[in-house]
Amino acid sequence: MKRDSVHTCHYSINNYIHNTPVLSSTLINDIAGAQLFFKCENFQRAGSYKIRGATNAILNLSDDEKSKGVVTHSSGNFAQALSLAAKSIGVKAYIVMPTSAPKVKIAAVKQYNGDIIMCAPTLEAREETAQSIVNKTGATFVHPSNNTNVIIGQGTAAYELLQDHPELEAIFCPVGGGGLIAGTCLAVNELRPDCKVFGGEPFEADDAYRSLMSGKIETNETANTIADGLKTQLGDKNFPIIKDHVSAIIRVTEQEIIDAMKLIWERMKIIIEPSSAVTIAAVLKHKNSIQNKKVGIVISGGNVDLTQLPF
Amino acid sequence: MKRDSVHTCHYSINNYIHNTPVLSSTLINDIAGAQLFFKCENFQRAGSYKIRGATNAILNLSDDEKSKGVVTHSSGNFAQALSLAAKSIGVKAYIVMPTSAPKVKIAAVKQYNGDIIMCAPTLEAREETAQSIVNKTGATFVHPSNNTNVIIGQGTAAYELLQDHPELEAIFCPVGGGGLIAGTCLAVNELRPDCKVFGGEPFEADDAYRSLMSGKIETNETANTIADGLKTQLGDKNFPIIKDHVSAIIRVTEQEIIDAMKLIWERMKIIIEPSSAVTIAAVLKHKNSIQNKKVGIVISGGNVDLTQLPF
Repeated sequence: MKRDSVHTCHYSINNYIHNTPVLSSTLINDIAGAQLFFKCENFQRAGSYKIRGATNAILNLSDDEKSKGVVTHSSGNFAQALSLAAKSIGVKAYIVMPTSAPKVKIAAVKQYNGDIIMCAPTLEAREETAQSIVNKTGATFVHPSNNTNVIIGQGTAAYELLQDHPELEAIFCPVGGGGLIAGTCLAVNELRPDCKVFGGEPFEADDAYRSLMSGKIETNETANTIADGLKTQLGDKNFPIIKDHVSAIIRVTEQEIIDAMKLIWERMKIIIEPSSAVTIAAVLKHKNSIQNKKVGIVISGGNVDLTQLPF
Repeated sequence: MKRDSVHTCHYSINNYIHNTPVLSSTLINDIAGAQLFFKCENFQRAGSYKIRGATNAILNLSDDEKSKGVVTHSSGNFAQALSLAAKSIGVKAYIVMPTSAPKVKIAAVKQYNGDIIMCAPTLEAREETAQSIVNKTGATFVHPSNNTNVIIGQGTAAYELLQDHPELEAIFCPVGGGGLIAGTCLAVNELRPDCKVFGGEPFEADDAYRSLMSGKIETNETANTIADGLKTQLGDKNFPIIKDHVSAIIRVTEQEIIDAMKLIWERMKIIIEPSSAVTIAAVLKHKNSIQNKKVGIVISGGNVDLTQLPF
């Protein structure tokens, strides 16, 4: 990976994404005892940071590859993001979704012209279905988190945050498949190597925490968490970066996630999804070590079913 | 009123309020067929624009008056705003609240050190109780909307919006007691006299619409609307300003309010209260007359009970 990968990516995806605003809240600062800067990727196109990596992955294809399209499997934000990125760039997107995917997510992918292929709700079925589309169409498979161009793209959120606030001493983000936190590490390393990176993870899906402890990629046996974006596990492309750069991963309970989500909705008046609330909960749990510091937080997304709130 | 009243006020209250961000949404622009700029007073201190007028009213008191405190009656956002403004300036605030006021609002006033006096849930009881406190303590009564300094203060939201976007051709805001829309008229008149001002109002509490038609202040017989901030009526201080400057008041149904609220929550990922959704509904209802125009919207507040959502 080149030393300025995230920097270069920032300029190449610029026209396809929003440079999202950074918000602050005196009240949340008081609670945390630190000065917090929220990078609001919930305001991003398609409702999450995922469009960054999806766009970068597509822009890095050759013209021949672009003409054959892209394929991914996802029931969540990456499905929407890849469809919208592909639509914006003028490329076909095949999206493998499990039959268990929420109707609102399926509708969103359709709205972005994604070609949906339903499959059984198992990882095996998803991978097999995606592979069969690759075989049939020649489309390029784009993994939601374990793909170098996706990782670099996700790093642009922290890159923009550090451009606006170069004084940050730490950045927190959630850990699911590892794409966002690995990209954040790359951005920090390019712009502000002394800034620390912390991850937030649910106790119920703490594969990344255990992976950092054991030094090898661990899996989740179950993933019974409200943070539906964080049920996946790390991959061989992002784990080495995470291992090298992340200071700590802080685990939080389901109640801490719900409380943090309610706190941000009520006090900051912004809609964040449970996976983003994990990060806030981690910041509050870890607050003793960030007292009076300037801390960035990547609010990863705001895609929530308003009829299924936990409060 | 001086020609630069809002301008002067903007500088004097500056240290006590947030200069709130202005957000945009490509998707909502597409729906409206116009370029919309949302002035996010839901991110304001105490969750609504009301702190602006409350602060200005208190700052305009003499030292003697300040030493005796301020009093108002409100079950809503002005109660919180006056308490917080008074606390910030170091003045005592007596808040008359009806026994029917939501517990969360009472808790918020307490948090801001407001001295709460409960009374029966009628306008007569509220006015009498407030008067008795004035008589007993010498505190100055500050009306939530029919007070010249309050009106000027509320105008600073539109003032900031026009500073950021002098190209605006119209500004929409909700109409309750008339303080915000009258202040908006004053700001427009100072900075950009050719910019039009429109109001949004529920059919269920359309006193302002009828007042503009008849040329005199009309009352609401009932006010059975989800937009709890808009049940009040205009006053003799703000009605003349509204009559002179407002182009039209657009009335919306309860279903249109709920649909607009859900649209903004889902697509812009910001929490707006029903009274603010009235404005969005009015913009969408009136969209034929704003095609391809640049339009400002004052998002008045974000104080919502998350356990009592209409969807």
